[in-house]
Amino acid sequence: MCTLPQGATAYRRAEITLGGVAVREPFRVTLHAEIEGPHGLVRVPGFYDGGGVFRVRYLPESAGRYAFRTFSSVAALDGHKGAFEVGPAAATDHGPVRTDGGFHFRHADGTTHHPIGTTAYAWTHQPDALQRDTLESLRSAPFTKIRMCLFPKHYQFNHNEPDRLPFERDEHGTIDFGRFDVSYWQQLERRLDQLDEIGVQADLILFHPYDRWGMASMDADVDDAYLSYAAARLSAFPHVWWSLANEFDLMKAKSPDDWERFAAILQRDDPTGHLMSIHNCLETYDHDRPWVTHVSIQRIDLYKTAEMVTEWRERWSKPVVVDECGYEGDIDQGWGNLTGEELIRRTWEGTVRGGYVGHGETYLAENEVLWWSKGGELKGTSPDRFAFLRQVLEDAPGPLEPVPGDWDAPRAGIEGQYYLSYYGFNRPRFRTFSLDPAVAYLVDVIDTWGMTVETLPEPQRGTFRVDLPGRPYMAVRLRAQ
Amino acid sequence: MCTLPQGATAYRRAEITLGGVAVREPFRVTLHAEIEGPHGLVRVPGFYDGGGVFRVRYLPESAGRYAFRTFSSVAALDGHKGAFEVGPAAATDHGPVRTDGGFHFRHADGTTHHPIGTTAYAWTHQPDALQRDTLESLRSAPFTKIRMCLFPKHYQFNHNEPDRLPFERDEHGTIDFGRFDVSYWQQLERRLDQLDEIGVQADLILFHPYDRWGMASMDADVDDAYLSYAAARLSAFPHVWWSLANEFDLMKAKSPDDWERFAAILQRDDPTGHLMSIHNCLETYDHDRPWVTHVSIQRIDLYKTAEMVTEWRERWSKPVVVDECGYEGDIDQGWGNLTGEELIRRTWEGTVRGGYVGHGETYLAENEVLWWSKGGELKGTSPDRFAFLRQVLEDAPGPLEPVPGDWDAPRAGIEGQYYLSYYGFNRPRFRTFSLDPAVAYLVDVIDTWGMTVETLPEPQRGTFRVDLPGRPYMAVRLRAQ
Repeated sequence: MCTLPQGATAYRRAEITLGGVAVREPFRVTLHAEIEGPHGLVRVPGFYDGGGVFRVRYLPESAGRYAFRTFSSVAALDGHKGAFEVGPAAATDHGPVRTDGGFHFRHADGTTHHPIGTTAYAWTHQPDALQRDTLESLRSAPFTKIRMCLFPKHYQFNHNEPDRLPFERDEHGTIDFGRFDVSYWQQLERRLDQLDEIGVQADLILFHPYDRWGMASMDADVDDAYLSYAAARLSAFPHVWWSLANEFDLMKAKSPDDWERFAAILQRDDPTGHLMSIHNCLETYDHDRPWVTHVSIQRIDLYKTAEMVTEWRERWSKPVVVDECGYEGDIDQGWGNLTGEELIRRTWEGTVRGGYVGHGETYLAENEVLWWSKGGELKGTSPDRFAFLRQVLEDAPGPLEPVPGDWDAPRAGIEGQYYLSYYGFNRPRFRTFSLDPAVAYLVDVIDTWGMTVETLPEPQRGTFRVDLPGRPYMAVRLRAQ
Repeated sequence: MCTLPQGATAYRRAEITLGGVAVREPFRVTLHAEIEGPHGLVRVPGFYDGGGVFRVRYLPESAGRYAFRTFSSVAALDGHKGAFEVGPAAATDHGPVRTDGGFHFRHADGTTHHPIGTTAYAWTHQPDALQRDTLESLRSAPFTKIRMCLFPKHYQFNHNEPDRLPFERDEHGTIDFGRFDVSYWQQLERRLDQLDEIGVQADLILFHPYDRWGMASMDADVDDAYLSYAAARLSAFPHVWWSLANEFDLMKAKSPDDWERFAAILQRDDPTGHLMSIHNCLETYDHDRPWVTHVSIQRIDLYKTAEMVTEWRERWSKPVVVDECGYEGDIDQGWGNLTGEELIRRTWEGTVRGGYVGHGETYLAENEVLWWSKGGELKGTSPDRFAFLRQVLEDAPGPLEPVPGDWDAPRAGIEGQYYLSYYGFNRPRFRTFSLDPAVAYLVDVIDTWGMTVETLPEPQRGTFRVDLPGRPYMAVRLRAQ
């Protein structure tokens, strides 16, 4: 029985379902479809979803007629043909996020995407009520991307056993790495859909070192099958990003060749071509590799963090997403006990340098529910300031590119049109600007911590002085009239 | 007429005066003495002090009998002989500061010196009342060293003309670089004596780029004569340090050979062998040069400042004095608008890494009197915290040497005896220590900004947890019982 997509629209996953197929080792079955649409022929892998049901998921990127044929090692799955119509994208659907070819991101339809990231590594491995709390928090938070692991996390504050794992367990609790627990994946997909509904991209971390289940040191064939399965299930979600690893360099069981092979598997099995990167602890990956679409990076120096965006952009010529520059919190770990002020300072530093700096939160809690891993409630002072920054980004005439500024204050902008200077921990009581007198600028004095914008009553041109309050965390924005 | 020192004591300058000598070009006269004391024969240069008076100043470093003979190009100054007695040092006199052969400083008598530096470049070029204010401020301040220029300063906030210059001016105001204004030097020496009385070392800056008088671009023979004259006059002061330059690399009229020649002149003409270094702006000097006794450095990176002490110690194997890591203030220059908190954070960072970080203050003022250059009153929040740090240093069993700490918190100490960990902008709510259980430690929780020390009621040993308040700028000190 082959069911075709009904009412499909562009940028929404379309699913071909092949039901009632009983096979002995369904996860070893090979299945893919060739789908031919307005943009040519695409190879789309299928997967087993339990209960005798196989699926082929696809993310069409334009309206039109799509014809398909299935190919399988199992006769009952092979040779299915058909066609389906895809309607135009809904107004709220913009398609997967890709790079703009430079240092920024945009959706498939050209809409700018501003990654305002956060991290909750293991939020989908928590009890249901907590997962719902996390979604509620995200609904009113400014974040447009969340880093989250497919595998559960074992670490400080992370000792509870998840209800489900990506793989089946037998009655003794032994994991069978040859069989996926489809209920885990279905549950994950419900959460992904909920993230999509509230406009949050899912930066999916495929491997990480914080493990007590053996998932950080599986055999190569298990790794590969897992990646193919994840790609087959998840590539048709418009809002996923692939992160090969959190802290790849701490995964001692993996070699550089493994990471390269993993990237190749995803490139082969993800017909959508989602964003892909790999995140480090002590040493960065070779982000020059062609499959790396953007730099996903954890600061290496304890003191010079988001300021490194300038150097990283020059080094790799790709968008720079600083997924970890320290978290707001008060735990006993140096990566997780910044003030909100310092996290926001780093975020602005990285932003005006043309990068994207992410949020994280690690406040000590009796119940061990810390946002950075389990989600739950946001307690910190920084999310409101991320919201303020997001508004500044959305109000800008384009993505923020660095332009020459003062030696002590980085500046982003578009020459002759828009300038945004950030003073960080410095607190000048005034600053003098010298610009082309042909252009008049509206001058906004922005308190990035106090979240205020004060526009000077008169536009300024040429050389002019802007008075400042002598507090840290100020910015000055100039907008050409 | 030759007058011998009366009532001389060790570590106090002794002066041989040769009066009533009328010569046509007194500043071109050569004069020196050979002085033979308990430690052998020393060549001591003399100088012309106006009114027909020449002087030979010497700083004896031990009690005993000293015999001398003068040598001069002028017959009336040549061949004077005599001897004088030097008594033991007063209890408060410890002699010139030198390095301890490692990364720290001690006086000639072995007493530890903790440089807690400040800067007031042009304080002795200000009106007398302001100079007295500066001295009053220093009297109640914690600083043990002040950076100050021999030449006046021309710069933002520095436009007033000094009453006296090191060189004579004619009736038209033209400077005669061949004649020193002895009244300038006598006035300077009075100020030096007053600094000495209140326990402040004078870090004398011999050249600097901020000039409208031509002193930054004098002829080589004028440079050399100036240095010889300064050395002859000032070497016998126990508390002077030589700084060849402030921001040598901005002095475009000087070449590397010039700096090396200047160092050689001071080495020849300073029989006391005072500390000597040279301070940078954008690029550091080659502090490996043998005449460089210690590293005097301005931070180069805007973000990673005193944290660099670790690297600088390794690079040069000399004491590291961070004379500029940014100043507390609110002017429009990035080097002068830090909060007190950030300056003190940098200071502690550098301190527990085994360096010495200095103070500076630049608050905008209507009257253009900013401490960093003109002195006057201290207005900032950091001096009290420098005083607190000074007390911590004085209470330590020895100079602070870095020892292995946590990855996120530098630590100074003496293994098995004393540990001082600093958490900076991080704010852990607790920290766990693991030490040899054979030793019990008194645990002090130190708020470096709040200036409090809370000693836990019970000594701790082995592995123990120390609770912290979750604020930035905390330190933990462990003292073996």
